[in-house]
Amino acid sequence: MLIQGKKYRTIWFKNNQSDIICIIDQRFLPHRFIIEELSSVGEMVTAIKDMHLRGAGLIGAAAGYGMYLAALEASKGNSFVEILNKSAAGLKDSRPTAVNLAWAIERQLKAISKGLSVAEKKSIARETAITIADEDAGYCKKIGEYGVQILLELSKKKHGSTVNILTHCNAGWLAFVDYGSATAPIYEAFKQGIKLHVWVDETRPRNQGSSLTAWELLTQGIPHTVITDNTGGHLMQHGLVDLVITGADRVTRTGDVANKIGTYLKALAARDNKIPFYVAFPSSTFDWQISDGMKEILIEERDTDEVKYITGLCDKELKTVLLTPSESNAANYGFDVTPARLITGFITERGICKATEKSIVKLFPERKRIE
Amino acid sequence: MLIQGKKYRTIWFKNNQSDIICIIDQRFLPHRFIIEELSSVGEMVTAIKDMHLRGAGLIGAAAGYGMYLAALEASKGNSFVEILNKSAAGLKDSRPTAVNLAWAIERQLKAISKGLSVAEKKSIARETAITIADEDAGYCKKIGEYGVQILLELSKKKHGSTVNILTHCNAGWLAFVDYGSATAPIYEAFKQGIKLHVWVDETRPRNQGSSLTAWELLTQGIPHTVITDNTGGHLMQHGLVDLVITGADRVTRTGDVANKIGTYLKALAARDNKIPFYVAFPSSTFDWQISDGMKEILIEERDTDEVKYITGLCDKELKTVLLTPSESNAANYGFDVTPARLITGFITERGICKATEKSIVKLFPERKRIE
Repeated sequence: MLIQGKKYRTIWFKNNQSDIICIIDQRFLPHRFIIEELSSVGEMVTAIKDMHLRGAGLIGAAAGYGMYLAALEASKGNSFVEILNKSAAGLKDSRPTAVNLAWAIERQLKAISKGLSVAEKKSIARETAITIADEDAGYCKKIGEYGVQILLELSKKKHGSTVNILTHCNAGWLAFVDYGSATAPIYEAFKQGIKLHVWVDETRPRNQGSSLTAWELLTQGIPHTVITDNTGGHLMQHGLVDLVITGADRVTRTGDVANKIGTYLKALAARDNKIPFYVAFPSSTFDWQISDGMKEILIEERDTDEVKYITGLCDKELKTVLLTPSESNAANYGFDVTPARLITGFITERGICKATEKSIVKLFPERKRIE
Repeated sequence: MLIQGKKYRTIWFKNNQSDIICIIDQRFLPHRFIIEELSSVGEMVTAIKDMHLRGAGLIGAAAGYGMYLAALEASKGNSFVEILNKSAAGLKDSRPTAVNLAWAIERQLKAISKGLSVAEKKSIARETAITIADEDAGYCKKIGEYGVQILLELSKKKHGSTVNILTHCNAGWLAFVDYGSATAPIYEAFKQGIKLHVWVDETRPRNQGSSLTAWELLTQGIPHTVITDNTGGHLMQHGLVDLVITGADRVTRTGDVANKIGTYLKALAARDNKIPFYVAFPSSTFDWQISDGMKEILIEERDTDEVKYITGLCDKELKTVLLTPSESNAANYGFDVTPARLITGFITERGICKATEKSIVKLFPERKRIE
């Protein structure tokens, strides 16, 4: 996407020849735009774990680049495979819920194993990292092209008056390599001149909505309003939401969706008010091995200080303030599971389908279960 | 309630003879315990409007005391009734949603009008203010005594293992004169030795949960955990909530409930997971004039800076930090309406009833509509 006229992705090699990987350090948004340079697997693990970068697609791409750094480090050691596998395990452990992480690592391990020499393995790892990132950007672009149809129809139904979209968390281009998933149809619709407005859930505790999604929309000039996570139901009751689009961190083959904590509550409100609820994601987010999201998806519990403290701008400096009594306990579940029954449809790089196994495998026939 | 061994209410005369009204300035909780002294109607309006105090019952009591200050001021002017009515109008405008505000003012106006002299009017106003506060405390005590039955039954059903209660916002004693509404059964159950634990919704944007409810429970030694407003659905899906109890700001005669924004989302989640959802309030919260909460209850829109900024403790000082891009718009709806169909029951000072007009007027037969 363009930032002040300059084209950016969320992850890239510093220059074509270098082994330095650049990322936008999202911890400082929306207040500061800082680029971080990473040159070791350890730094990449920290960047993923401590959320310098986050979001399903970008975590996958980062794992791809991380595996290139792992191949580099392995090439300098005694046992290439042993070091590579250790790095892969370290990367895999950095975030437990995101399926793209494991997916990208497995893909790299398989690709690298085909190299006949260490030099070739390194070269394959580099190419694969770039391919994973390019594919992610390409898939998100496709999600935009399919998803815009839903917005076009709503716009027509409303005789061209503003279409109000609610989104939760950040499934924007900052969560992917480019375009985003939930935001891709929005960016495409805006480009096509459809009148729209986005309700941005602030998305506690880490406020990815108010800090990242709002920043993204602001830089692209898209009308938006930040709301607390408590507000969506009221807006839906009063006809102020035409459509909900969220991203996903993991989707079962039966259509259950693990996404940022609070997504389930918005899906309940959308159903109660007969508002379409779509989930947009590239197919790498599917976990084809599982069928019951509630039972089979491990929900990450994060540091409770993320609930008790919050960081923001005060006198031009980032300050962290305590919100609760210091002695009170807190709990911090990162995600929840929205059952398929509450979801109107999925927007993927292959098109739109219902949140049912039947409809999903119609788009992805290679994933059909063998009876 | 006791704070470090000393008994407090949330509003009181500085001493029996004085015209100074003391309140706990809730803006500084949980970090500082500050008592504010109010000695004019203007100061009381500011205290209500800027939420030095808040909560349905306490707003009603504050309006009662405010009307005593109004009577004092009127007694010093040319036209008692004119000044009193002007003050009444000012107090009434200080918060638009809370029905207790208008109710307490009307009650004072009616009572004061019966005084034959200015001195008698002043004396009636003082007595009425104290009576309103005493009644509020007494009603909340009753709510505790009725509501504890629900907790006792749950405790029995769980063979004495911990009963998990989720609450939203602060319907604790800080929202009333004493005991609270949603918290009254909890305090009573704790006193009776029932094992319990409270999930405290932080309740953005003003964080009454993480700052007030958590502080209340902490000072009483009740086990509790602060969670983001996004978390309740996930907890309910996983059997970690046995009961939801909230307060109410306004209840229609048909059982629709206006309460802090986000209550509706928790009610939806409770229904989806077959968890009882109770609303606890004294009957002064009923608005007997209205039947359709969605259409007839005006929802207060507050300053959007409450969404964009938040205040907390940093280096032993209260600091306010910016959470969003400074140029992004925000919206701040204070309440939402939970339709009666989502509510298991009401806990009032006269007992427990269903959220239906039939069941409500069985407890309050004097409110039956005349056919």
